[in-house]
Amino acid sequence: MKRVSSVLGPGCRRRPGGRPEVGFRTDVVQCVSMTLTTTISEEMKPESVLLHPLGIAVAPEPELLCIFGTGDLGRSLGLRLLQSGYRVVYGSRRPHSCGPLPQGAQVMSHAAAAQSAGLIFICVHREHYEFLETMAPQLEGKVLVDLSNNLKKDMYPEANAAYLQRLVPGAAVVKGLNTLSAWALQNGLLAGKQVYLCGNSAEAKQAVAEMATKLGLTVLDRGTLSAARELEDFPLQLFPEWRLPLRVAVGLTAFFFFYLLIRDVIYAYAEQGKDISFRIMVSLANKVFPIVSLIMLSLCYLPGVIAAFLQLYRGTKYRRFPDWLDRWMLCRKQMGLVALGFAFLHAIYTFIIPIRYAVRHKFISRVVDEMKNNKTTPFYFDNIEAWGTDSFYVLGILGFFLYVLLGLTSLPSVGGSLSWREFSFIQSKLGHLTLSICTTHGYIYGWNKFLRPSTYKWYTPPGYMLCLIVPSVVLVLKMLLLLPCVDRTLARIRQGWERTQPREDVDESKAANL
Amino acid sequence: MKRVSSVLGPGCRRRPGGRPEVGFRTDVVQCVSMTLTTTISEEMKPESVLLHPLGIAVAPEPELLCIFGTGDLGRSLGLRLLQSGYRVVYGSRRPHSCGPLPQGAQVMSHAAAAQSAGLIFICVHREHYEFLETMAPQLEGKVLVDLSNNLKKDMYPEANAAYLQRLVPGAAVVKGLNTLSAWALQNGLLAGKQVYLCGNSAEAKQAVAEMATKLGLTVLDRGTLSAARELEDFPLQLFPEWRLPLRVAVGLTAFFFFYLLIRDVIYAYAEQGKDISFRIMVSLANKVFPIVSLIMLSLCYLPGVIAAFLQLYRGTKYRRFPDWLDRWMLCRKQMGLVALGFAFLHAIYTFIIPIRYAVRHKFISRVVDEMKNNKTTPFYFDNIEAWGTDSFYVLGILGFFLYVLLGLTSLPSVGGSLSWREFSFIQSKLGHLTLSICTTHGYIYGWNKFLRPSTYKWYTPPGYMLCLIVPSVVLVLKMLLLLPCVDRTLARIRQGWERTQPREDVDESKAANL
Amino acid sequence: MKRVSSVLGPGCRRRPGGRPEVGFRTDVVQCVSMTLTTTISEEMKPESVLLHPLGIAVAPEPELLCIFGTGDLGRSLGLRLLQSGYRVVYGSRRPHSCGPLPQGAQVMSHAAAAQSAGLIFICVHREHYEFLETMAPQLEGKVLVDLSNNLKKDMYPEANAAYLQRLVPGAAVVKGLNTLSAWALQNGLLAGKQVYLCGNSAEAKQAVAEMATKLGLTVLDRGTLSAARELEDFPLQLFPEWRLPLRVAVGLTAFFFFYLLIRDVIYAYAEQGKDISFRIMVSLANKVFPIVSLIMLSLCYLPGVIAAFLQLYRGTKYRRFPDWLDRWMLCRKQMGLVALGFAFLHAIYTFIIPIRYAVRHKFISRVVDEMKNNKTTPFYFDNIEAWGTDSFYVLGILGFFLYVLLGLTSLPSVGGSLSWREFSFIQSKLGHLTLSICTTHGYIYGWNKFLRPSTYKWYTPPGYMLCLIVPSVVLVLKMLLLLPCVDRTLARIRQGWERTQPREDVDESKAANL
Repeated sequence: MKRVSSVLGPGCRRRPGGRPEVGFRTDVVQCVSMTLTTTISEEMKPESVLLHPLGIAVAPEPELLCIFGTGDLGRSLGLRLLQSGYRVVYGSRRPHSCGPLPQGAQVMSHAAAAQSAGLIFICVHREHYEFLETMAPQLEGKVLVDLSNNLKKDMYPEANAAYLQRLVPGAAVVKGLNTLSAWALQNGLLAGKQVYLCGNSAEAKQAVAEMATKLGLTVLDRGTLSAARELEDFPLQLFPEWRLPLRVAVGLTAFFFFYLLIRDVIYAYAEQGKDISFRIMVSLANKVFPIVSLIMLSLCYLPGVIAAFLQLYRGTKYRRFPDWLDRWMLCRKQMGLVALGFAFLHAIYTFIIPIRYAVRHKFISRVVDEMKNNKTTPFYFDNIEAWGTDSFYVLGILGFFLYVLLGLTSLPSVGGSLSWREFSFIQSKLGHLTLSICTTHGYIYGWNKFLRPSTYKWYTPPGYMLCLIVPSVVLVLKMLLLLPCVDRTLARIRQGWERTQPREDVDESKAANL
Repeated sequence: MKRVSSVLGPGCRRRPGGRPEVGFRTDVVQCVSMTLTTTISEEMKPESVLLHPLGIAVAPEPELLCIFGTGDLGRSLGLRLLQSGYRVVYGSRRPHSCGPLPQGAQVMSHAAAAQSAGLIFICVHREHYEFLETMAPQLEGKVLVDLSNNLKKDMYPEANAAYLQRLVPGAAVVKGLNTLSAWALQNGLLAGKQVYLCGNSAEAKQAVAEMATKLGLTVLDRGTLSAARELEDFPLQLFPEWRLPLRVAVGLTAFFFFYLLIRDVIYAYAEQGKDISFRIMVSLANKVFPIVSLIMLSLCYLPGVIAAFLQLYRGTKYRRFPDWLDRWMLCRKQMGLVALGFAFLHAIYTFIIPIRYAVRHKFISRVVDEMKNNKTTPFYFDNIEAWGTDSFYVLGILGFFLYVLLGLTSLPSVGGSLSWREFSFIQSKLGHLTLSICTTHGYIYGWNKFLRPSTYKWYTPPGYMLCLIVPSVVLVLKMLLLLPCVDRTLARIRQGWERTQPREDVDESKAANL
Repeated sequence: MKRVSSVLGPGCRRRPGGRPEVGFRTDVVQCVSMTLTTTISEEMKPESVLLHPLGIAVAPEPELLCIFGTGDLGRSLGLRLLQSGYRVVYGSRRPHSCGPLPQGAQVMSHAAAAQSAGLIFICVHREHYEFLETMAPQLEGKVLVDLSNNLKKDMYPEANAAYLQRLVPGAAVVKGLNTLSAWALQNGLLAGKQVYLCGNSAEAKQAVAEMATKLGLTVLDRGTLSAARELEDFPLQLFPEWRLPLRVAVGLTAFFFFYLLIRDVIYAYAEQGKDISFRIMVSLANKVFPIVSLIMLSLCYLPGVIAAFLQLYRGTKYRRFPDWLDRWMLCRKQMGLVALGFAFLHAIYTFIIPIRYAVRHKFISRVVDEMKNNKTTPFYFDNIEAWGTDSFYVLGILGFFLYVLLGLTSLPSVGGSLSWREFSFIQSKLGHLTLSICTTHGYIYGWNKFLRPSTYKWYTPPGYMLCLIVPSVVLVLKMLLLLPCVDRTLARIRQGWERTQPREDVDESKAANL
């Protein structure tokens, strides 16, 4: 009897008689060894008997799970389930010719497989779901895990899982695990990976969550089946939160590139007839990059300042921000990282300046020129000039250093190990310090050029002046917020105080606003 | 009555009659939709019936949890609990005017809410705890989760949770989750986050831990309620383990800055009347940074060497190290990272040398000078000089490369994926190699200056000589420890052998010292 | 009675009478305070009584676990278990003189300790396992956790855990937790750490897994006890997956170093009698590094291309790749990171070029030379030359930037937060873009030298030509794969289509190949 039940799996445990097993056995096909290396062997049971003295009843058989579909995902999932101690039965249209399956798994017809297990993984493309409708009676009361993904967004009017639920209304459909790839499953790269679940039955979700936890996954419940579409869109996402920052970066880069191209290269060609187009590659790029980097860094801190003024104006924190501000605030991290990327490029572009052909040539021709004209003091050493350029470089270096520090703390594993106060210290205090230093770096660059008429070619201001506007505004606004009276009001608002609330509610909020 | 009330809570499932609900219902206020986006809908139950065939009895209602306080934290926590499948009831002093709460939550008077649930989150400021004392009878036997934090350390003589326990001695107070911010809760950024719990009742802690695990958190038990103060101090921490390294760094930087300022700038002004104050910004800083970096790197490895000698001297590893050594050893990682920061600055300062105004000027004036004086071999090419400077740079580069490698492996996610042997290989072998290379880099810098009298201005040694002392000592001591006889003794001590232990115990320790 | 048993621990729960406690008590030795700071105190029980109204029966005592061995690992493990709420009893050969143990732990003879608990940690060296054989009767039905490690691989013919199971066939041996160090245990650095378990009894593994989860560990089941050897080898691993990439890197570096040494330094000495040996340190290295980096980057992408052509040729994806290709594909990440290391060195070597003595000397002597010979246009400014060198630098910078980006996404915590599509986008699309840019960087370096006879010293091609071969081949093959007709066939094969499969199976695979 023991042997029989062991083949039939836990689904059969609750079945009283021996009759069902007859029609069942005919479907059982012991699978041939799979190409993947499996470590599961048959010697799993002997010890369970010896454990009785531990006080627990006869060791239960491992649970039997069913997988519909013998494709890549089905096979890899089965392999992983077997290695985690489950027994696995495949449901297939042609159980006798379904190709290599993991060693230890059984394969049956869809109907027989469904009957033997309570939890069924649907590893079949959505286009082939129809056959499940005809199986509705057998699937009554089962938990169906929908792992399917689509190739594109919005391919179908309803989510795959919702469609499945409609086809088999008697089953509890759980959408989830669809972010796992066959590759990750085959190679066991699951530990700590976060997966999402959704479904209408809390109990069914619980069963799937327990299974997933056994596989080493971290499960996150996303609510009812109405979230299925969202889950199905996850694997199709391509940096959604990076889009806005990248668009801003591309827009700014394009604008400043053409602006500087006109002011520098085309101006020189038109007014002086000089061809300095070679400057596009390095000199021009090395002007555009720091400009974009500084503007994007200030765009990181601008929404926070706007939000603070909005709260001050409204006198409460309980009203929602406008949508555009919300979206802006959510991509501040990505904004900052793009800014760091531009700063990194700026740094490297600067380091290679002295080895460029054009720079060396200019340098030499300057020496030779001076020598020929036989000046006494070919280069007058200017102490102020030395202080100025050195300060310029030092501020740039310090700014870049802090930039890199900010970037490092935004790494998930580093940021996660910081306390809330540490994180906010770095991202707010250190962030604003970085912005101040980089802005000063920009001001010093132009320190002695602001009032020189030759700076304004064709009556346009140079790029670095334009790029200093936003950071300066952010810093001035931030300083206003740091004034004691403003700061105190803002702190009270953020602790739940409301300017317009009735008197009695103030006490309540005081007692509640943790 | 007590029996009834206890069951009324998490679920009302077991509620037999309709009477208790009467006094109860009057308090129920269905909440208006909250400003936060909630994904919970009401369609959660229909499927549970269909699951019967699975063999499980009627699906239980989700557990009901209570939250005291409708501030930011209370609301965000409620939202998260609802999304994880719990039912939530708020306790409020004015249940009818408490502002927007998450959709699906109920709000009642404190007393009614407390009665209906077994687990109560206290999201109220400590200053308002008094009202809980009057509710002691209703809170008898409940689990109270204290999530409060203070604004400063040591604001109150006893921990908030201990105070709460004193007010309500009949409840099981659990301190915990206080490191979570309302922001993280609202945005669901909980997966894998580590939270701490402490409390006197193991059972109450278990209940809270299960709830936290469902939210995706990783729970760490920190023992009894006596640890509450420690937990309350966590969110107030501001880089505690970075303090010592940063202080050492600031101290060393200040010392060497003034030392070099006197030796270089002031000496030049006093003895030669030259104003080279512009050097402070870059040249001087670029001398101070590598000095501090090298000393701090050697301070990383010094405590390990001291500990080894202490163990050798004592002949046992079972005696505690002095406190200062313990503290020093605990901040070695931070010490190393600060050193890496200084090395990074040193590298960038070095890269920008050739584009500095002063350097270019000096270079040009040297060329012009030589030309004017019409020397035949303006710059004698010295093969040894070329070898020397190139070796100097190469060692610096390799040292920096290894430095960065050490820094990368100290990232939590990288270090965590290394085996113990790999980690110790990198941090010990590679670490000492880095120290040797950087020390040699320093020696080569001064290779031809050690014996020159002009090096010792005002009879003081230059900075790089001072900075070579500690690393040299560490390396010599480390080499002593690597002598076969010393190494063997140390290895035996570290495996549990004791020089002075009685004969019989040696066997014991041999049998035990894994 | 209940009170008494509660002091004796859960092992006594099942014992019916009061007699056993007598012989038991004689063994109990209350441990002296340990040197480690423990936070466990005795005030753990009072609240359990107050919790009755919560509806749960008398709060259960925390479970009692047994540890054999009082060495470092045993002590640290005990401390951690105590802090997680367990009670701990040590089994020792000399319970009265076993040195300091964690406060709150008991210590008894091996036999008594074994009897009192169901789960026993074996923290004893394998050499001392024999005594366990004599204890087989007492260990009948217990769960034995084997934490032992060996000093070397293959020291013994069978795994320690298999040996233990052979000695005590009546117990359920679980191998696991052996990757934890005493140091990590003592300092509580366990949260989220992944540990492996294996054993023949699923129930015993479950018990150990629950305990480990309480300690904050993430448990991964590796199957039956036959995996014990593999688990015992884990802590002895020293970068197994880095070996092949590092060997390739060392081989390539050595080859190109000697090749360039002969072509540059020895050629100059033999043919022109010039000693330019100083170039070895920087110039030569800075030629070798980019060459090795580029070849290794292309070796990252070559196996993927080979695999695609193999699949196209075979017409199926269901046949295994040859072993060498499998091994090659598994170390692509490490290959890429080594390549990044060389690229990093190349970048820094390039940055310091202008401050080298030899470079400055050459530069000056060139100026002086030109001046002396009184040429009118000492350096003819060549616009094409300026464009060429600038493009060369820009491509190098962009390539390095993308290189660093690829390296960042291979950090575990960053890569883990990407969706599958994002990860493949970065590693495949961005990876091939990086390879193209770096290859172009190489081609531009030699743009005007390919046809010059002086390039081929001693009839050998320069290094950069050799290094362009592999990347060019990879890029050409990759472009062939991107041809629409080839791409379509490959996509079909990768979705499960087989060129030679029988007609009926096509339908099946269509229905199954998710």
